[in-house]
Amino acid sequence: MGDVLGVAVLGAGHMGADHIRRLDQVVSGARVAAVADPDPERAKEAVAGIEGVSVHTETAAALDAPGVGAVLIASPGPAHEEALLAAFERGLPVLCEKPMVPDSTGALRVVEAEARLGRRLARIGFMRRYDAEYRTLKSLLDGGRLGRPLMLHCVHRNVSSPPGFTSAMLVNSSVSHEIDAARWLLGQELTAVTVLRPRPSAGAPEGLLDPQFVVFETSAGALVDVEVFVNCGFGYQVRCEAVCERGSARIGEAHTMVVTADGGARAEVPQDYLVRFADAYDREVRDWVDATRRGRVTGPGAWDGYAASVVAEAGVRALGTGARTTVEMVERPALYGGTGTR
Amino acid sequence: MGDVLGVAVLGAGHMGADHIRRLDQVVSGARVAAVADPDPERAKEAVAGIEGVSVHTETAAALDAPGVGAVLIASPGPAHEEALLAAFERGLPVLCEKPMVPDSTGALRVVEAEARLGRRLARIGFMRRYDAEYRTLKSLLDGGRLGRPLMLHCVHRNVSSPPGFTSAMLVNSSVSHEIDAARWLLGQELTAVTVLRPRPSAGAPEGLLDPQFVVFETSAGALVDVEVFVNCGFGYQVRCEAVCERGSARIGEAHTMVVTADGGARAEVPQDYLVRFADAYDREVRDWVDATRRGRVTGPGAWDGYAASVVAEAGVRALGTGARTTVEMVERPALYGGTGTR
Amino acid sequence: MGDVLGVAVLGAGHMGADHIRRLDQVVSGARVAAVADPDPERAKEAVAGIEGVSVHTETAAALDAPGVGAVLIASPGPAHEEALLAAFERGLPVLCEKPMVPDSTGALRVVEAEARLGRRLARIGFMRRYDAEYRTLKSLLDGGRLGRPLMLHCVHRNVSSPPGFTSAMLVNSSVSHEIDAARWLLGQELTAVTVLRPRPSAGAPEGLLDPQFVVFETSAGALVDVEVFVNCGFGYQVRCEAVCERGSARIGEAHTMVVTADGGARAEVPQDYLVRFADAYDREVRDWVDATRRGRVTGPGAWDGYAASVVAEAGVRALGTGARTTVEMVERPALYGGTGTR
Amino acid sequence: MGDVLGVAVLGAGHMGADHIRRLDQVVSGARVAAVADPDPERAKEAVAGIEGVSVHTETAAALDAPGVGAVLIASPGPAHEEALLAAFERGLPVLCEKPMVPDSTGALRVVEAEARLGRRLARIGFMRRYDAEYRTLKSLLDGGRLGRPLMLHCVHRNVSSPPGFTSAMLVNSSVSHEIDAARWLLGQELTAVTVLRPRPSAGAPEGLLDPQFVVFETSAGALVDVEVFVNCGFGYQVRCEAVCERGSARIGEAHTMVVTADGGARAEVPQDYLVRFADAYDREVRDWVDATRRGRVTGPGAWDGYAASVVAEAGVRALGTGARTTVEMVERPALYGGTGTR
Repeated sequence: MGDVLGVAVLGAGHMGADHIRRLDQVVSGARVAAVADPDPERAKEAVAGIEGVSVHTETAAALDAPGVGAVLIASPGPAHEEALLAAFERGLPVLCEKPMVPDSTGALRVVEAEARLGRRLARIGFMRRYDAEYRTLKSLLDGGRLGRPLMLHCVHRNVSSPPGFTSAMLVNSSVSHEIDAARWLLGQELTAVTVLRPRPSAGAPEGLLDPQFVVFETSAGALVDVEVFVNCGFGYQVRCEAVCERGSARIGEAHTMVVTADGGARAEVPQDYLVRFADAYDREVRDWVDATRRGRVTGPGAWDGYAASVVAEAGVRALGTGARTTVEMVERPALYGGTGTR
Repeated sequence: MGDVLGVAVLGAGHMGADHIRRLDQVVSGARVAAVADPDPERAKEAVAGIEGVSVHTETAAALDAPGVGAVLIASPGPAHEEALLAAFERGLPVLCEKPMVPDSTGALRVVEAEARLGRRLARIGFMRRYDAEYRTLKSLLDGGRLGRPLMLHCVHRNVSSPPGFTSAMLVNSSVSHEIDAARWLLGQELTAVTVLRPRPSAGAPEGLLDPQFVVFETSAGALVDVEVFVNCGFGYQVRCEAVCERGSARIGEAHTMVVTADGGARAEVPQDYLVRFADAYDREVRDWVDATRRGRVTGPGAWDGYAASVVAEAGVRALGTGARTTVEMVERPALYGGTGTR
Repeated sequence: MGDVLGVAVLGAGHMGADHIRRLDQVVSGARVAAVADPDPERAKEAVAGIEGVSVHTETAAALDAPGVGAVLIASPGPAHEEALLAAFERGLPVLCEKPMVPDSTGALRVVEAEARLGRRLARIGFMRRYDAEYRTLKSLLDGGRLGRPLMLHCVHRNVSSPPGFTSAMLVNSSVSHEIDAARWLLGQELTAVTVLRPRPSAGAPEGLLDPQFVVFETSAGALVDVEVFVNCGFGYQVRCEAVCERGSARIGEAHTMVVTADGGARAEVPQDYLVRFADAYDREVRDWVDATRRGRVTGPGAWDGYAASVVAEAGVRALGTGARTTVEMVERPALYGGTGTR
Repeated sequence: MGDVLGVAVLGAGHMGADHIRRLDQVVSGARVAAVADPDPERAKEAVAGIEGVSVHTETAAALDAPGVGAVLIASPGPAHEEALLAAFERGLPVLCEKPMVPDSTGALRVVEAEARLGRRLARIGFMRRYDAEYRTLKSLLDGGRLGRPLMLHCVHRNVSSPPGFTSAMLVNSSVSHEIDAARWLLGQELTAVTVLRPRPSAGAPEGLLDPQFVVFETSAGALVDVEVFVNCGFGYQVRCEAVCERGSARIGEAHTMVVTADGGARAEVPQDYLVRFADAYDREVRDWVDATRRGRVTGPGAWDGYAASVVAEAGVRALGTGARTTVEMVERPALYGGTGTR
């Protein structure tokens, strides 16, 4: 399939270190060629025991290091725009963790830069598109057996929110996954959003509006509702039911073992996203490496990253006002034309 | 437990005939003493083979017939108010099919009449309160093990709508069950309603807004969302998930047998409410007969019938305007004080 | 449907008292006319508050009491034979709790007595035939959609065994339900039995061979295996999977509510047979009353009671020897011909 | 982690080609260094597009090819013994597809040869030990929370049997997976076996005894029953329920999506083992490559291969005689002592 792909990994924090392990040990056909992190010690630790990796503190130096043929961006969101533009300048294919760029203005600059290049280089790390359950659902919907999708009922629950998690982050961080998943599953843009706010759970930190109930309208008249509850206490649960004209399909309740004991039959619920989506991350990176080695850019792109930003921003406004808020997007550049959200 | 209860059944249509069969063959301790229907042939047919029943065309005559100790109202909704008032005049306990009275003004007159009497006589036929699954859920919520309920996610699906079914009827007929169930499960009033209207299914009759997505707010800040889809095609499905502070509980997916064949594992979905709620109807009438023979009036009462009417009317207005609509109710009379919605 | 059926209940212990309550309060069309128990105080307690019941210490006196039109035998097993023969003499229809007669010689005498009468009077209380899940499975098997049944995999688990429960009773008391259910579901006789004895559970009383694994062969070459485990600790669980030529069907895992909390999704398992089969008992007695009032004798009969005794005795021998043991039955009298096990 | 592992793959048929693809594209840290197949064209096809592979017709030549550090045996069973011994001579670590050696005499020679070496080199391809569900069950059983395992109820169903499949192969090919899985899950040897033969399904080829019901006894007094049905028609289904002293645990019914349509709720059943165990094969080979690169030999070994052969042979004899047949094994060499079956 061609040479082993040398990857520069930007960011050696939690996510970056996990991707470094994945590239080194799990995914065939790739190797970590360079790593950059403002903290050189952290970078060194993350690549300890891996041969042939150069360690940098600057993005540019890592991208220009010998053997680098692609970039994986796992630095904090605010650093993404600069990194993406630097990769574009060098013509390097990129896998960029979500959010592509936290604010839609910056996201638009990335879209415009790539559009100017005239070819796609960026894939955005919406890993749910690589989850086996989501893929099965997507394939069912695309097949048309159940007719047109009318509604998606989504649930996104975390055991507890990390320190510093804000009410806005329920929308622009947690629900951003559902935003992309809905756009992809339906092949439609989200055009308006309303956020309903039940009285917060006693289990949520003081002042956090948790749970929230977010309702999106789509360009083809479908509805997408999302319960987001980041202090549900009992597990990490991501469910999606697609209600179509001739039937309904649900994912998110798979389990491996049922134990009957103590008066009940019980199936474990995963406790975090790294367990629930472990295979999806592996498949995502494997697919990216395979495609890149074949010279192809596939998967969710810069337009999807931009769209997610715009919708999330509208959602945050809707959370503040309590009112239905329309989503205003620029026209989709020809580069992403037609099948961009598919 | 005292004498066998003689019941006057008003209305010998589909529902009335089913209740006549139930009183005659299923429920111990009661008998059909009289029946009234504008169509005397229909009434005679419904009681064919049952001894000791007098047949009438007028409500008053049936109520005054010998041996009548209670009334079961199964006539069309517009006839209910007069029948209830007639029963109140005679001091007869009543089981009245839903809707108690189709319009809230008439419903209020019933409430006021009973309040003037100073004692409860009416039970309203919200049969879900007698369904085993709903009762298990109610008991869990009341027990408090999962903390306070924050949201109810409800689904109400029918195979297909009968001729003449209107967009408003999705709210004031179908969803009226969820209105009562939510009030009862939560012990809260519904205070506002918004109706979202996805693009209708191709499987719905021309012009029918089906499905709809109805969101209620409650007096204690909980949310209740209801997908109502009366032409879903595949079955009769009533689900409810209560999301609480420390866990979630779901009902509506019980099944008796799983068949693995033809490449899949499959459980039947009931095809209509008479199958799904067969036991609930039996239990409802048995409970009413038992309580009545003991001289007690329990279960959902006139206030619940009134509340359901008011909320449904607000829902129909919300469907028309697309806007969030508040529910305006009179003050609850002392007769229904405190525990009326429980 | 004719007059209310007056029933003489023999035995006022746990089961008898429950049937008295059922006839009085649950089942329409019947009343308790007489009760007999060696302990008159126990009998009086069981019918306290019910009008028109005569209380006796002797079976004959109860059967001859005024108003008695049928008999329900709920006395201890050893008393059944005499009671059945006494009912036969008087031409009274009988519902006899299982076991019909504990030993097959006595059971055969009952069969012969009824055969001499030339008409069926006895129904045996194999209540599983009235359970909704079993009936759904029976109906599927009879419909033939899945082809011929090849195997039944059965599980019969109790939380704990009562004092005095012996190793033989796992076969001739617990598994006797599966013996009848298998004969009925398959429409075949059981022709041989092997009992395998894993090392007993530490949770079983000293000396009790628990669990056991019982394998039956049938007249048409099917296999029926039964795990019987009467000290499983976690619940009362009765499961049955029918493996057919074109698919498999399972019952016994219905549940009403799934609660997700504390890291898992959990459904309650019933804790005893009175919960699991509550509806089946009601339906059984209602069906018996209805049929009896119509002058019909239906349901499992004396032949089924005899067959269960013979198979259970072979099972107990097989438990003792560890060897495959054939079941030797007399020829089936014409009275039970052809469809007797159906 | 050290150098990339060069693997000689013996056999380029269906299984061999799949492993070649896996080593080339899926598993990180390994590469195909040589391939041997009596049919050189088939070998060339299997490695088309992969660089640096030498192609051979003889086992010895492949093992001696440059860059070979380990062997993966995927040739037909009868060729395994010679290949294993050749690998042992060269001190090469081996992953050998099951059966290790089809007959127990040959299997014993492999065990003895490895015991003489004094160190383990062989891992046997019992891939279920790498399946996520089996591992979860194993971990639960080892944890002891449910007490001692008393019984395993297993089901092994295939859609249809390939041409030439014999009645003996249901035991020594299909059930051989359960033989190893049971030994591993329980940490016990299987000591006796009985095969029950229901009347064959009309869906099975003429003369094939299908299904069969195989019952094993274990060294610690547990029971293992296996329904094997290789023409079940509806799917590939592998289930296992472990019944323990304080609870029961089941695997084999995971699914990703439930579709409600056409009157039922339905989950797909996988149609073949390559779908059901795709991840297990990947994990098995990845684990082998990782361990080998670290200089370790782990997983199921030659003793497990020998034990499976002996038990399967006893099973085939039991199938022929219909009688309970004891399993006679040699004493376990010290090399495999103590934890060999774990």
